[in-house]
Amino acid sequence: MTYRAPQNDILFAMSHAAGLDRGIAQGIYADLADGFAATILDQAGTFAEDVLAPINRQGDLSGSRLENGGVVTAPGWREAYAKWIEGGWAGLTAPQEAGGMALPHLLDAACLEMWTSANMAFMLCPLLSSGAILALDRHGSDDLKRIYLPKIVSGEWSATMNLTEPQAGSDLSALRTRAERQSDGSYRLFGQKIFITYGDHDMAENIVHLVLARLPDAPPGTRGISLFLAPKFLLDDNGTPGKANDVRCHSLEHKLGIHGSPTCTMIYGDKDGAVAYLVGEENRGLACMFTMMNNARLSVGLQGVALAEMATQKAIEYANERRQGRASGFSGQGMSPIAQHPDVRRMLMTMKASTMAARTICYMTAEAIDRSHRAEDETARRQAGERASLLTPVAKAFSTDIGNEVTSLGVQVHGGMGFIEETGAAQFMRDARIATIYEGTNGIQAIDLVQRKLPLSGGDTVAREIADMRETIAQVSQVNDASFGHMSARLAETVDSLQTATRYMLEALGKAPDDALAGAVPYLRLFGLARGGTALARMTLAAKQIGSDQQAHIDIARFFAENMCIAARGLELSVTEGAASVHTAEKALAS
Amino acid sequence: MTYRAPQNDILFAMSHAAGLDRGIAQGIYADLADGFAATILDQAGTFAEDVLAPINRQGDLSGSRLENGGVVTAPGWREAYAKWIEGGWAGLTAPQEAGGMALPHLLDAACLEMWTSANMAFMLCPLLSSGAILALDRHGSDDLKRIYLPKIVSGEWSATMNLTEPQAGSDLSALRTRAERQSDGSYRLFGQKIFITYGDHDMAENIVHLVLARLPDAPPGTRGISLFLAPKFLLDDNGTPGKANDVRCHSLEHKLGIHGSPTCTMIYGDKDGAVAYLVGEENRGLACMFTMMNNARLSVGLQGVALAEMATQKAIEYANERRQGRASGFSGQGMSPIAQHPDVRRMLMTMKASTMAARTICYMTAEAIDRSHRAEDETARRQAGERASLLTPVAKAFSTDIGNEVTSLGVQVHGGMGFIEETGAAQFMRDARIATIYEGTNGIQAIDLVQRKLPLSGGDTVAREIADMRETIAQVSQVNDASFGHMSARLAETVDSLQTATRYMLEALGKAPDDALAGAVPYLRLFGLARGGTALARMTLAAKQIGSDQQAHIDIARFFAENMCIAARGLELSVTEGAASVHTAEKALAS
Repeated sequence: MTYRAPQNDILFAMSHAAGLDRGIAQGIYADLADGFAATILDQAGTFAEDVLAPINRQGDLSGSRLENGGVVTAPGWREAYAKWIEGGWAGLTAPQEAGGMALPHLLDAACLEMWTSANMAFMLCPLLSSGAILALDRHGSDDLKRIYLPKIVSGEWSATMNLTEPQAGSDLSALRTRAERQSDGSYRLFGQKIFITYGDHDMAENIVHLVLARLPDAPPGTRGISLFLAPKFLLDDNGTPGKANDVRCHSLEHKLGIHGSPTCTMIYGDKDGAVAYLVGEENRGLACMFTMMNNARLSVGLQGVALAEMATQKAIEYANERRQGRASGFSGQGMSPIAQHPDVRRMLMTMKASTMAARTICYMTAEAIDRSHRAEDETARRQAGERASLLTPVAKAFSTDIGNEVTSLGVQVHGGMGFIEETGAAQFMRDARIATIYEGTNGIQAIDLVQRKLPLSGGDTVAREIADMRETIAQVSQVNDASFGHMSARLAETVDSLQTATRYMLEALGKAPDDALAGAVPYLRLFGLARGGTALARMTLAAKQIGSDQQAHIDIARFFAENMCIAARGLELSVTEGAASVHTAEKALAS
Repeated sequence: MTYRAPQNDILFAMSHAAGLDRGIAQGIYADLADGFAATILDQAGTFAEDVLAPINRQGDLSGSRLENGGVVTAPGWREAYAKWIEGGWAGLTAPQEAGGMALPHLLDAACLEMWTSANMAFMLCPLLSSGAILALDRHGSDDLKRIYLPKIVSGEWSATMNLTEPQAGSDLSALRTRAERQSDGSYRLFGQKIFITYGDHDMAENIVHLVLARLPDAPPGTRGISLFLAPKFLLDDNGTPGKANDVRCHSLEHKLGIHGSPTCTMIYGDKDGAVAYLVGEENRGLACMFTMMNNARLSVGLQGVALAEMATQKAIEYANERRQGRASGFSGQGMSPIAQHPDVRRMLMTMKASTMAARTICYMTAEAIDRSHRAEDETARRQAGERASLLTPVAKAFSTDIGNEVTSLGVQVHGGMGFIEETGAAQFMRDARIATIYEGTNGIQAIDLVQRKLPLSGGDTVAREIADMRETIAQVSQVNDASFGHMSARLAETVDSLQTATRYMLEALGKAPDDALAGAVPYLRLFGLARGGTALARMTLAAKQIGSDQQAHIDIARFFAENMCIAARGLELSVTEGAASVHTAEKALAS
């Protein structure tokens, strides 16, 4: 299966849903003006098509293996990573003083999507490095930054994020990895970390581990966690990787998907402790880690978009080739392509429209992050920052749910062939499955949205978001175009439901917080449908202006409103009336 | 992971949703009276727990392999199959004259569910044999029946169903396997069949292949297809398997799931043709095959229920053990079991309630099949037959969709551990994934429901079904019990939506058939929610009478109505207004 980077769709979403055009006009995206965004997209898309996609299946088949204490990646992966470094892609958004290009997150989101479509398992390595760049840049000492940042930014060294321990998954307060102070100001780490993505591998010459651990005198719980940097190879006086640190990969997990990405159990301090350096302040590690995690959440959302896109491309291709039966509108000889059967077409449209809706949400989130740094006016920066906070859990959870649904539909479109691994459709489904789990399960994202994000600025942040949706609906309603169908009516109902559910949630948070928790997941879904549906609708306004060759955008937005957003009223009821039957579950679940 | 046969849940659904109690009172289930059903369930459940469940994981790990031209099954599978024969389970519903027990389908459905929960890949072998028993009994000549039936009924020989060819999947009119008449009245077969479940294996001493093929002078299309029986080993004069027939397994598929079940490409007639015997009349093969397929569709629906049940058991167990965070209602020390977090509880209740709803639909279908044979009155038999026809596509498609959804939720409940294959949750998801595809994809089931089943008896069959749902709702409304919550209101809305959508479909079939096809999938979902929701509600009436120890049934029915059935109005809109945006998909899918 080849991957074709969908630059047109991507650029259209960036420009007309996420506000790239507006941002260029306002000077926020001066560095993307004059077609520069398209140029980068073009190059990044070529890299995805030519370098990353061809090795994706091999990574799934071979996986990675532990050999003589080190992880060997799948055939072709080292070479691809060398090209990654050569292309300078690792430093796309990194600070210029560390050798990066400091380009906006919106552009990075688009590139990341394409690369991940082509090869999710490979892209996890650079993804972890990106998070580390952010954390080090924001929280690291000048020394750490000087020594480590340029190498990670160039891609020569990669980085990892070490949070999870067997007893500490979603709840980090339970973690036990121990850090001991040394007289030279460094630390020694002792403990075991699990689920460490690219904890070891053979593609980079050094690996920089960022590790959460607890000092002996730390307070209990999350306020006693510190962040440390422990390199795989200690640096000699020239800053060159030399002696091995006391950290090793103990074993690799056998996973449902992303086989190409080694998931390691890491042992720190088998001997005299892994040499490590403090990042940020003692006992403030969680704040540092949140910097990485917040960034990673959007990236994981993009994984959902990316695999949905890949599965959609593959399903459309297959459905246009595979012939079975005879659709009523088919005028050719013999059997018609299955893409012409209404029921298959519904699956393909569900895939296409869901993918595009999730994409708009992720890109809008990236734009909000950019605006929070780049807007001139302080109020605008603050509001954009809050908007990014509000949208991030939706971008993560809604998009990865869509990733699961669309990749599963992709299997379905292929019929029996979809269940055969050689076909490739099943791999996308297996790969996508982790994205609703890691970086905070989707349930935790929903709780974050309801508990922490809805109350932002006393509810003004979410109110502004809803007002923005309503404005688009008003504009769409004014366009008197038959091809819009029931789009604006369905979207208005969807946003009405969101508003009702939001009001309910804000009240419940005070007086019945468990009711809010019980409805958080359907609430997030409702939010995603409303935000995605209205963003697609905004794109129809641009499509209408540009002309008939953009009719596809209108058809997609209409389909999404008429066939996906229609779930809104039910979700609203589930939020506002469904909690009681969640709470009374005890007996039903006793069995 | 151990499996615990949920006899109480099963018996409750049989008795109070599917009408076992009523059937016993009416004499239809005289053979299940005096607790006989419970006795059989108990024995079948023990077989599932003790024999089938323990080898399930090994089957997934080892799969089966092709060795010296024959398929070797996973370690322990031959021994389990020997116990299967010994237990006499293969003949549960088979005719007594062939050595079977002729027990009702309702009981068989319950047993099949339990065995499939324990080991779906294993149970595919007996499942294929069951279909062959039915087809041979109904369409085979006396000679064929005398020679082959007793051996298949005892389980000593197994059977296969050979339909699919590379170019002929959902559309059997395209099949090419050739049958040539011989002077002795037998036939020779030449051709290739793909996706043949247990096409070869080492558990039975002979394999009876039922094969669709085309005679040289057959008319084109589906009216030129005949059904043949071709044994793996030809029988000598004593009826003992002797010389190998000209049929072989050419290769095995690498599949997403059900690894323990060999999926074979079969070659017929490499040399001088596979010796075969006609089943039924020439060119009437499709009718014979439909006998097998119709039966198989309910069994596949039960696979959805079975894996959903298994995944639910495992998720509940894990969620009660795994501790993270602290739920507000938790009074113990330290972290609480994740089952106490409202968001996890919602997942578990969704799993539990969906599984039970799908179960009721499958059991009701089985009861209708029994009634179509056993009712005294001819009208009752005909109506029951039509009811079985109506419900069968819903039982197949709704239940297997639920199978996908619930097994995926099962992975989610396990968090990161769910993605690790050793945990076992992922296997259920992989195994379940085929069930929405084979035996007619769920899209084809939906088309069957709308095109062929809704018009039965001029719409009276579906009208009776809806009236039956309304009667339950009326009874539930009369019970003034606070713990019912909004159950009857939500159910009434759901059935209203079903009625509106049904009326729309019946009209569309005449004037805009493509609109009916475009909405078939959401229509089937809506039907499943209404039928499942009201069946659960019917169980609450019994639970209420029995007393407070049955409160769980009420809580589950309420949850399903308040959190699942709420999708109904949206599905109705998707059916009645969503087709236009399916038809205009051309540009959007051109990419």
